Amino acid sequence: MFLVRFSIAGRNRWGRLQDNEITPLLSDPYDGIELDTRITLPVDAVRLLPPAVPTKIVCVGRNYAEHARELGNMVPDEPLLFLKPPSSLIPHQGVVRIPPQSTRVEHEGELAVVIGQRLFRAKSTAVRDKILGYTCFNDVTARDLQRKDVQFTRGKGFDTFAPCGPMLRTDLDPSDLAIETAVSGQVRQSGRTSQMVVPVLDLIAYISSIMTLEPGDIVVTGTPAGVGPLVAGDSVDVTIEGIGTLSNTVENWE
Amino acid sequence: MFLVRFSIAGRNRWGRLQDNEITPLLSDPYDGIELDTRITLPVDAVRLLPPAVPTKIVCVGRNYAEHARELGNMVPDEPLLFLKPPSSLIPHQGVVRIPPQSTRVEHEGELAVVIGQRLFRAKSTAVRDKILGYTCFNDVTARDLQRKDVQFTRGKGFDTFAPCGPMLRTDLDPSDLAIETAVSGQVRQSGRTSQMVVPVLDLIAYISSIMTLEPGDIVVTGTPAGVGPLVAGDSVDVTIEGIGTLSNTVENWE
Repeated sequence: MFLVRFSIAGRNRWGRLQDNEITPLLSDPYDGIELDTRITLPVDAVRLLPPAVPTKIVCVGRNYAEHARELGNMVPDEPLLFLKPPSSLIPHQGVVRIPPQSTRVEHEGELAVVIGQRLFRAKSTAVRDKILGYTCFNDVTARDLQRKDVQFTRGKGFDTFAPCGPMLRTDLDPSDLAIETAVSGQVRQSGRTSQMVVPVLDLIAYISSIMTLEPGDIVVTGTPAGVGPLVAGDSVDVTIEGIGTLSNTVENWE
Repeated sequence: MFLVRFSIAGRNRWGRLQDNEITPLLSDPYDGIELDTRITLPVDAVRLLPPAVPTKIVCVGRNYAEHARELGNMVPDEPLLFLKPPSSLIPHQGVVRIPPQSTRVEHEGELAVVIGQRLFRAKSTAVRDKILGYTCFNDVTARDLQRKDVQFTRGKGFDTFAPCGPMLRTDLDPSDLAIETAVSGQVRQSGRTSQMVVPVLDLIAYISSIMTLEPGDIVVTGTPAGVGPLVAGDSVDVTIEGIGTLSNTVENWE
């Protein structure tokens, strides 16, 4: 099943997407999916939102060996975690803004997992049932500021630096999906989720040994090799097999 | 004025605290404070909660020169930002849990600011009117994991690593307050907020040049020199002039 969040008449709702038609849900999907079958909406009539309302966005660095190497880093012996603020989220077709503080903003296409049920110190085998679904994510990064600060918070935390969407796929095996990022039509990153150093379910179990994951929280699973610059006027597409394509444009901040 | 958040009969509410009596608010305090004068509650009858419901907790490292030096770090030329997850928050009198992953957990007493109105690219002179209030915060840190990971996320992100409270002082000049942290009755950290490298209002303006600050967000302003270990059985008190004392106990995670 595909789930979307959307805005219509100033109200934000969840819906099920099927054949380009949205059937709204009666409530959040975390405790089960109840459809409001009185109406359907054409997907073109609504504005899509990121398909999650997270209390936190937990990301992992250097989870594809070839990407770690391209930036001159070792693959860590444990997952390397960092956080992006919820204020950085933008939806499918939202605009990534290059801030004046940076001269080198880069794309990082990634598979994102949206948590469905609270997880604390979970075993990997218990994780799958607690996942709501999978979506596409672009971990946009001001590479110059990331290097200067060492801490990733500023370089990855600007408003608009977390494109996420367009929809959430609930029934998907995340273990071997093609993932590709293209800039203005040219493929820059191309990999498979099977190349992750720590696979999705183990990664979520690891995070839950540190911090409780809440319904709606987003876990972002790392980027394959091929990261590179974004400049004003670019379009950037993250495509994941079985999910779809997250498309965004790039402009300078005024 | 002092504001508190509290839980009573399973419901979380805001209130005004005066003479050990709480007068509940009719709604969140961000758009103005309306008292529900029909009732008052003795503060001892309720369970206090952290006095904020943040979408993010933005912290600053090395904002007191003497503390930067005690850990062998330079004072950065710009504020060094990091995030703690909202899942790490605990209230006044909550229990800090030492996780099995760390052998060195330390206290860092800090002044925290709770945002009242949305801030984006604000000038320092525009910040004061957007602050809801000030409270005490303990940026509990697994020093061994912070050093190992380089990224601060794991070392500072464990559940229970963000004691915050007990109350919010709305009318306070943050520029020169005594701040003291004691462990089991012994003073470990003692400083004044006037020793900050970047003062409170400038710090918030800086953060707002990167990420939009939302009502309820917490900005944590750095720790004075004197950080040291916490072990099971300790009590830890962060006292800030004009606010009060945040008290917590320390236990091992089961």
